[in-house]
Amino acid sequence: MSTLQEVLEPVSDADFSSPVSTLRVPSNVVLESLAHEEGVTSAQLREHVLCGKAVLLRNPHSEKWTAIGSLVTTKVNANVGTSADCPNYDQVFKKARIAVEAGAHTLMDLSTIGFENALDFARGIRSVSEVAGVPVGTVPVYEVARHGMIRTESTRVVLDDDEALEIVERQAEAGASYMAIHAGLNRRSLEVWRRKPRSIVSKGGYITAEHMLTTGKENPFYERFDDLLAILKKYDVCLNVGSALRSGATRFNDEAQRAEIREAGELARRANAAGVKTTVEGPGHVPMAMIPEIVKYQQEMTDGRPFFILGFLPTDCFTGWDHIVSAIGATEAVRHGVSWLCYITPAEHKRMPNDKDVKEGVIAARIAAHIGDCARGNSVALAREEARNDKGCLDPNAAKQFCSICGQDFCPIQRLHDLKENIDVALP
Amino acid sequence: MSTLQEVLEPVSDADFSSPVSTLRVPSNVVLESLAHEEGVTSAQLREHVLCGKAVLLRNPHSEKWTAIGSLVTTKVNANVGTSADCPNYDQVFKKARIAVEAGAHTLMDLSTIGFENALDFARGIRSVSEVAGVPVGTVPVYEVARHGMIRTESTRVVLDDDEALEIVERQAEAGASYMAIHAGLNRRSLEVWRRKPRSIVSKGGYITAEHMLTTGKENPFYERFDDLLAILKKYDVCLNVGSALRSGATRFNDEAQRAEIREAGELARRANAAGVKTTVEGPGHVPMAMIPEIVKYQQEMTDGRPFFILGFLPTDCFTGWDHIVSAIGATEAVRHGVSWLCYITPAEHKRMPNDKDVKEGVIAARIAAHIGDCARGNSVALAREEARNDKGCLDPNAAKQFCSICGQDFCPIQRLHDLKENIDVALP
Repeated sequence: MSTLQEVLEPVSDADFSSPVSTLRVPSNVVLESLAHEEGVTSAQLREHVLCGKAVLLRNPHSEKWTAIGSLVTTKVNANVGTSADCPNYDQVFKKARIAVEAGAHTLMDLSTIGFENALDFARGIRSVSEVAGVPVGTVPVYEVARHGMIRTESTRVVLDDDEALEIVERQAEAGASYMAIHAGLNRRSLEVWRRKPRSIVSKGGYITAEHMLTTGKENPFYERFDDLLAILKKYDVCLNVGSALRSGATRFNDEAQRAEIREAGELARRANAAGVKTTVEGPGHVPMAMIPEIVKYQQEMTDGRPFFILGFLPTDCFTGWDHIVSAIGATEAVRHGVSWLCYITPAEHKRMPNDKDVKEGVIAARIAAHIGDCARGNSVALAREEARNDKGCLDPNAAKQFCSICGQDFCPIQRLHDLKENIDVALP
Repeated sequence: MSTLQEVLEPVSDADFSSPVSTLRVPSNVVLESLAHEEGVTSAQLREHVLCGKAVLLRNPHSEKWTAIGSLVTTKVNANVGTSADCPNYDQVFKKARIAVEAGAHTLMDLSTIGFENALDFARGIRSVSEVAGVPVGTVPVYEVARHGMIRTESTRVVLDDDEALEIVERQAEAGASYMAIHAGLNRRSLEVWRRKPRSIVSKGGYITAEHMLTTGKENPFYERFDDLLAILKKYDVCLNVGSALRSGATRFNDEAQRAEIREAGELARRANAAGVKTTVEGPGHVPMAMIPEIVKYQQEMTDGRPFFILGFLPTDCFTGWDHIVSAIGATEAVRHGVSWLCYITPAEHKRMPNDKDVKEGVIAARIAAHIGDCARGNSVALAREEARNDKGCLDPNAAKQFCSICGQDFCPIQRLHDLKENIDVALP
């Protein structure tokens, strides 16, 4: 029978044949500190950054950096934010603290209602970024849509090109470290969806689709992609190419989503060539048996760029328990190449997550990240597991806490400890 | 890209070359009803029962049957019971009700303190069986050890051979549907453990080992195995060959555990030949990357008999969240051939599970069973998933419940529904 070491494949070296040299690396101090944390050399990390297979996110307020990519441990993202039904920013700040305390490595401020008559999103982003300390991401199209709705006094979405770029810059200035931008949704990929339309469960994706369907115009983030990249480069913001056309459970892997992934791959190449670090967002619902193939397809289409997922949810039958459903799908995803997990809380499909939901969502995703990292042979995760195991199970002090499950008198840990003197073998 | 149907391998037909014809099948009415529930033919189910690859458990009080094996959906077992610290049987009955309401298919009464001066376990078993309705299992060695301790007025374990058999018969008469019996622990397998001793986290396994180590005697359940089988056959009780030497996290797969699995395989063959239906219990802690190989080894050693596991727990770093850890490991286990999951609750490694822990443990295990069943192509699980999906995501009534997460005004489900009239495509 194999040992664990034999079963685990060594982490394969990335393909460094065509590094995109316009990408930047931080100072040696930062690079070495991150490399040390991640159990790799700074040369390895630098190479991965330069060829786009790792991104280093930075919170400009705390100067805290986080590395994302298959070379390093899998990271967990938590979402917080206001909505029309829950516009209270104090709750958002509290949840941001809870998420970071529970171990979230990054946070997204998904607010759709800003300060000052709902229009000032930058103030919220700055505060979340200061409170959180970890890198904070945003979805600029929410603010663009809100501004348009208030200006036109309409409930219909109209996205203004120039305003979109101004908002991206304001959010970058406020401290956004990365932005989910649904630029892979353009006339081509939307046309594929129109041939076989079905639900869209991405909020930003749907907003963009509605704008395109009702105005007949192109997605401004696609049309003005070069201008967008100039802003992102100026503020060293990471582009997270959004998964706009992702569906609910009914169509986990249709032609529209594949068309969008191909567009996303092309945009990621353009972004890297322009010096903008890039990650790519994937779907939410994927049956367990399809996860390896879906991850492989996405990784091939995007040249192994860091893959951010929302789930995966391999079943739609356990509403109220989606943090567990997602932990199962996410573990499988990490084993096959996903490197950044968006948490799913028990409130998914039900309501705005409360404080407890936020904590449970982060921990469930961290468990998936850790088990997945161990399974793919990540050295930091394996060392953490080994350290926990090395504490051993025969510590009678530890055993005392466990006894109520067996009853004091039948606790095998305690009893074996007591028995040591009575048998003629050297017990540990 | 493949479809889900292409990725899923068809359920392979069992190897029927050497049916153990002494095994019994229930009446055609029962067989047909179970086969219908499980989406198989009664001929298929009968064949699996006759060759030992499926077992049908029966609660004699309710006459409720449950089928276990790779042919059918994966089943979930919940543990309840008294301990010296929590001797209250009313709590046990309450937890039994909660577990069954949450969807547990079988229950084990793991009490170590009986009624009437702690000695009457049968009364508890009868009541749990009546309350639960589902098949109820026991671990007779707990009662044997308790009787010995009270009789000898000692805290040391002494197991009396005749008493052990009497207790098995009393528990069978009271309504036990299956019994975990650690007969795979004998002088041979214990000797392997003694060469490299480490923790034993099976309560029944440890009790048996202590008896053997301190008295120098053989395990009575191994020594009197034929007498044991006669009783189990008389009451149509299923033998669940216990995993006595299973370790905590430190030694997931050592020679002692493998030695015991080989003994268990041999005992299972003897039991089937004597007309006793049999399942085999596996380990608790297994690293994710090792699960396929460990399941394969156990299935080979036991000729594909139904495999009952306690976990698997692929990490030891998240005490307090072991129901999630276990759901991840259990899903992988089910994909590779495990057919019966013992729940792990958030209280694992910490305390006696409370009512909430019991519910959460059952649901986490059910999620793992369902996702694992879908991944291995079980038709009933896939149909359940499809039915859920068919409800569709575009029902605006359903959408209303979801809106607080996005805010009423940005709910993509609701908005796409409203938009239908305004765009020139046929939306679903």
